[in-house]
Amino acid sequence: MDFVLKGNLCYSEAPERLATLPDGYVVCVGGECRGTFETLPAQYAGLPLVDAGEALVMPGMNDLHLHAPQFAYRGTGMDLELIDWLNTRAYPEESKYADLDYAARAYDHFVDAMRRSATTRFCCFATLHAPATLLLMEKLEAAGLCGYVGKVSMNRYAPETLCELGDRAARDCEVWFVEAEARFAHVKPIITPRFIPSCTDALLRSLGELMRRYGAPLQSHLSENRTEIRWVEQLCPDSAGYADAYDRFGMLTPRTVMAHVVYPEPDEIELLRERGVMVAHCPASNMNIRSGIAPVRRLLKAGVRVGLGTDVAGGQTIDMFRAVTDAVQVSKLYWRLIDQRQRALTLPEAFYLATVGGGAYFGKVGTFAEGYAFDAIVVDDSGLPHPQPMTVAERLERAMYLSGECRITHKYVNGEPVLA
Amino acid sequence: MDFVLKGNLCYSEAPERLATLPDGYVVCVGGECRGTFETLPAQYAGLPLVDAGEALVMPGMNDLHLHAPQFAYRGTGMDLELIDWLNTRAYPEESKYADLDYAARAYDHFVDAMRRSATTRFCCFATLHAPATLLLMEKLEAAGLCGYVGKVSMNRYAPETLCELGDRAARDCEVWFVEAEARFAHVKPIITPRFIPSCTDALLRSLGELMRRYGAPLQSHLSENRTEIRWVEQLCPDSAGYADAYDRFGMLTPRTVMAHVVYPEPDEIELLRERGVMVAHCPASNMNIRSGIAPVRRLLKAGVRVGLGTDVAGGQTIDMFRAVTDAVQVSKLYWRLIDQRQRALTLPEAFYLATVGGGAYFGKVGTFAEGYAFDAIVVDDSGLPHPQPMTVAERLERAMYLSGECRITHKYVNGEPVLA
Repeated sequence: MDFVLKGNLCYSEAPERLATLPDGYVVCVGGECRGTFETLPAQYAGLPLVDAGEALVMPGMNDLHLHAPQFAYRGTGMDLELIDWLNTRAYPEESKYADLDYAARAYDHFVDAMRRSATTRFCCFATLHAPATLLLMEKLEAAGLCGYVGKVSMNRYAPETLCELGDRAARDCEVWFVEAEARFAHVKPIITPRFIPSCTDALLRSLGELMRRYGAPLQSHLSENRTEIRWVEQLCPDSAGYADAYDRFGMLTPRTVMAHVVYPEPDEIELLRERGVMVAHCPASNMNIRSGIAPVRRLLKAGVRVGLGTDVAGGQTIDMFRAVTDAVQVSKLYWRLIDQRQRALTLPEAFYLATVGGGAYFGKVGTFAEGYAFDAIVVDDSGLPHPQPMTVAERLERAMYLSGECRITHKYVNGEPVLA
Repeated sequence: MDFVLKGNLCYSEAPERLATLPDGYVVCVGGECRGTFETLPAQYAGLPLVDAGEALVMPGMNDLHLHAPQFAYRGTGMDLELIDWLNTRAYPEESKYADLDYAARAYDHFVDAMRRSATTRFCCFATLHAPATLLLMEKLEAAGLCGYVGKVSMNRYAPETLCELGDRAARDCEVWFVEAEARFAHVKPIITPRFIPSCTDALLRSLGELMRRYGAPLQSHLSENRTEIRWVEQLCPDSAGYADAYDRFGMLTPRTVMAHVVYPEPDEIELLRERGVMVAHCPASNMNIRSGIAPVRRLLKAGVRVGLGTDVAGGQTIDMFRAVTDAVQVSKLYWRLIDQRQRALTLPEAFYLATVGGGAYFGKVGTFAEGYAFDAIVVDDSGLPHPQPMTVAERLERAMYLSGECRITHKYVNGEPVLA
């Protein structure tokens, strides 16, 4: 769709540079952004105009880490410890996706919520069930969303219902990958070992080979909490650390997204930077599951690529505005409680991470610069009256902090309407 | 109003004991709760029935600390340091309330939001302007809410527009207090020295005398952040600490609510317990303003009374469900990052603090036991579909974590409808 969107534009020009353009125009041609304008250039005057009026217009959010099958029980069981939570919530729920009827019902709820959310692109985990995973991909594609979905690979330390059998795990993954790759245009398959403890070396080796054979992307978990890290050390005595346990199998590439990274060693940070890995920072989940606070400022200073993730249902909500403000809030606690050399994230920086930072995983995505994919949302904040004038930047900040009181009225992915 | 409310009841029986009663009845007679019932007793069969259907029915929330005049700019300026925030946001905004027209406009927004919120009772700061404070009280009373409003007292270390003159501060406070006490039935005046640095010893002494003369309650701030604590030490070289700086003037009583208490010394905890002071824990504000995390478990273990506050606009929202889950989340970080002997708060405990814990400040308030004030809210969570059955307790937890996706449809204070 070629068109012009008019409204109060907000987008990032750099990590700490939030650009705002009141009553501005952003132009979409062939699914790409042609830039922002105070006055509409004559050459675009003939295009259809969508006038967002007083609303805020901003790039869509990129959610780099969430679990679709955990959506159904988000916001419950939060008092449980990680292992109890996995055993009583995550695993029993994920087992249900062997049943396609259940999967259809549950994924309908998930996809509908994703469609109405601020998120335009995502990297999400499904379960190990190929049929349910294909069904999820079909629904996300039909909703007009863009992103990666992973059939989970796991063949050890899991309940019987969620444990693939030895060699079959990798073969099933390949069959699923090839089918999914061919079937969908905007929702793409991603190799998804659950995490090191869930996968034998043989499985990891095979998945690494799949990555290379198909030039495939990969998502997993890295250094989420201390108990898990010690477990990985025991399981992988020959590895130089948790990151290396993936790297040994060639799994760290610029097409890799690793969730959490709460306790990275200095050499791991360096490895992530060298390999161009994208880190998905999931602040809500790290609080809820008592992991701690990821050292985002250290990662950024070291040049590691960072985006944000909601990590539903370790995180309780798919609302990426909440992820933005959670990232700011926990970074303030990190500064206060852990290391006062690590300056807190500002709102413009966290907004950058949610848009441009994570967007980079998908290509030229996340801002309104020329040549970027036209991913945009229109945010109606009229439910938040104010007795005094406010700048667009102030309204953006308030919309992030009070997202529950705002409404996403329009959403475009690659210039196509997803919500209108 | 005498009536019966039917629905999925949730209320606290003890800090860690959340009671739930699916399709239960809670009875209101003469503004008081007559208890909860699985089957409606014959003696109440003639009362009008309000059927909340599938919705959740719970006690209203008690917000022990917020600033009404900061509501207008909540969720903005969050990247500023405390002193910059006060100078560029809080103080300029509060100065505007000298203008009654501005106050009327801004307080209309605030009161309307409070009416629609989960909050039934509150302790709130206004500004130092008596006319605007009376106007706020009038509006809150008309809305049917219950609680305390304080004309702020401050006569040093503030911009000229917000600095009362020497002796006049106490006299103006008394005139306001007497008028407010006589005019309103449900919204009552509370003595409100801003905090130690804003008040000369002479003013504090006079306010302490006012408390005793009128048996008046008091609200203020205590130990919010380290810089402020050092400042108080310099200002009050004769005090044994920050809490003692209030105690010297007789300001610590069971009718005193102190916000924050992030860095209490052991002897201060003991003093707060001895005096029966109520602490308003404000987790969001403590993150936003980079104060840290209050040691709530330590306070509770010591027997200090604790409730929750949103502290708008240090906190970004008046949503007390958010305060409940913020309290749980930061307590997990406290456990993880500061002291692993201090077990994290559970959801039932934080819910207890928001209802019974803070409710105790207002009398028998905060649960559905017989003889308690009938403060209740009906929470529609039908916007959160779930593919599997859920218990009422799970739905309550989810409603707290995903409050933005739920709707308060009815609210009663002392049995009178505020929202219906």
